[in-house]
Amino acid sequence: MSQTDNKFGISTIAFDADDTLWRNEEIFMKAQETFINMLTDYHDEDYISSHLAEIQVRNLSLFGYGIKGFTLSMIETAIELSEGRIRGHEIHNIITLAKDMVAAPIHLLPNVVDTIKVLKGKYQLMVITKGDLLDQEGKLARSGIADLFDYIEIVSEKKPASYQEILTRYQIPKETFLMLGNSMRSDVLPLLDIGVKAIHVPYHSTWAHEQVDDNELNAYGDIETFENISELLPWLAKKT
Amino acid sequence: MSQTDNKFGISTIAFDADDTLWRNEEIFMKAQETFINMLTDYHDEDYISSHLAEIQVRNLSLFGYGIKGFTLSMIETAIELSEGRIRGHEIHNIITLAKDMVAAPIHLLPNVVDTIKVLKGKYQLMVITKGDLLDQEGKLARSGIADLFDYIEIVSEKKPASYQEILTRYQIPKETFLMLGNSMRSDVLPLLDIGVKAIHVPYHSTWAHEQVDDNELNAYGDIETFENISELLPWLAKKT
Repeated sequence: MSQTDNKFGISTIAFDADDTLWRNEEIFMKAQETFINMLTDYHDEDYISSHLAEIQVRNLSLFGYGIKGFTLSMIETAIELSEGRIRGHEIHNIITLAKDMVAAPIHLLPNVVDTIKVLKGKYQLMVITKGDLLDQEGKLARSGIADLFDYIEIVSEKKPASYQEILTRYQIPKETFLMLGNSMRSDVLPLLDIGVKAIHVPYHSTWAHEQVDDNELNAYGDIETFENISELLPWLAKKT
Repeated sequence: MSQTDNKFGISTIAFDADDTLWRNEEIFMKAQETFINMLTDYHDEDYISSHLAEIQVRNLSLFGYGIKGFTLSMIETAIELSEGRIRGHEIHNIITLAKDMVAAPIHLLPNVVDTIKVLKGKYQLMVITKGDLLDQEGKLARSGIADLFDYIEIVSEKKPASYQEILTRYQIPKETFLMLGNSMRSDVLPLLDIGVKAIHVPYHSTWAHEQVDDNELNAYGDIETFENISELLPWLAKKT
């Protein structure tokens, strides 16, 4: 630990939400599986999957992250791969898939509630999550844990500037801030870039688009990693 | 004017964005017109239009306000009204319509730039806009006037509690806040409900869902109204 860490106490802890507080990626995975099965008459699974990924990334700047953008990309993929032969009722099934995703129950990850409850009142707690406003608000509401956080920030991108803007707006000194999340690209590196502490809490599956290659990663040196969010408590205890 | 208005000076002015700072509703209107023309083989225009409105409102809680939700509702309407006979390439045209909407140029309303420029530096200026995060951020960026505002707030709903939350977060005393917007339901009444000043700046067309019936409106007494945003300057001058 550097000296800076000891000189300034942490007073605000921010958490990513999807795949950090609750399972999320698997809701997309399952929908994608159902979608692929709908199209196996036209192409093989790998081809459908890679074509969907391609269209998704192509549409990101227009449609962003979230269920509605994902659904429009699925529909576009279905039309392209079937050369327009896909039937109305099949596209209707894709829309139904979207509605199911929007309302899917939230499965909190192990130790999340217990850990956050211990921190509540001792630290200013935030959620900083990327994605569709309505999707994210809905998940927070259904999670049952929204009240444990002092502030919720839903952003469209997690760039260094996005975090800097939040720190400025809340007048939080950099040295007192800590961010935790499962995505190296969104929850860890942008904070290190602006000189803020961040801890990686990996999730077993991370969307390919969020992954970072090793060369890029090496430039950052050792990155602090927790296997489970509960490790935060002893880590904080050691700091004080 | 009540005495309260004179005792406390206004220090923060917030503006709605869509159809207050720039034209927006007509982008949806035009897309809807193109959409209706696509379906005239199946039904008459009025029926298509009312069915789309119905599906849109039904989907609001799932898909929210914004282009992506509107597009999914158009696709759903097309499938239902054609009883599944709609072709893949026609649905692809609907998705193209969405992409055009996302990238549509922003037409600022008359006197917006001049008025905001006069206010800049003298007041804390905010945009409070409802809708899809990415849509709204994109429009702000393309408007070229984002830098004139101190804070941008994009919310999923404009309820009294949404405004209260913003006032609390920015520690803005109610008496010093003023909101302007074209939607009685979203930009005016929720503020009056929490005892905050708001001025109605009507736009020639307002989405039916945003309209308020006269009985509801009468309960609020006289509501201050500007024909054009430029009236704000003399109005503020009279206050000081």
